[in-house]
Amino acid sequence: MSMFVDSATRTDLLNRLKRAEGQLRGIQRMIEEGQACIDIASQMAAVRKALDSTYVRMTVCFMQQELHSRLQLDDRKEGELDALLDDVQTLLGKVR
Amino acid sequence: MSMFVDSATRTDLLNRLKRAEGQLRGIQRMIEEGQACIDIASQMAAVRKALDSTYVRMTVCFMQQELHSRLQLDDRKEGELDALLDDVQTLLGKVR
Repeated sequence: MSMFVDSATRTDLLNRLKRAEGQLRGIQRMIEEGQACIDIASQMAAVRKALDSTYVRMTVCFMQQELHSRLQLDDRKEGELDALLDDVQTLLGKVR
Repeated sequence: MSMFVDSATRTDLLNRLKRAEGQLRGIQRMIEEGQACIDIASQMAAVRKALDSTYVRMTVCFMQQELHSRLQLDDRKEGELDALLDDVQTLLGKVR
């Protein structure tokens, strides 16, 4: 399976992962400071959600890249495809 | 809801989170190096699993702490309770 060729896609994914990494460090601080379990749980749920949406984003970027390179569509059809992929991202986002 | 009073519990949770943080940095490196999408996906799934098992561990540690402090059991019953909580951790681990 291919890698990501588009540098904007890579930057988007990297930024999401960097943010999640920062959230994880924040949770470690909360535990060290002895904060309440329920607050730690909320932050853990937030990181999980961030990672899941990164996963969906990665999958959609992959589909977009591969479909564009394999189907070689004209501009109008490329636009149609991108609109469809936005919907796919929304759909996948609801279960992950 | 209370915080974690036991320092061994805090250390355990901190170590798990530190490991997940290292995994997240590894994924960023993979993206920067242009590694294949499928390999990045596997690593993302591994971090998600690590966070989920940290969440379950945290919940079980919370139950253990609160039950011990509220029920004030004798040693035999404490042993029973801890064995039960091991099973609860296994059960929760199957769905998260």
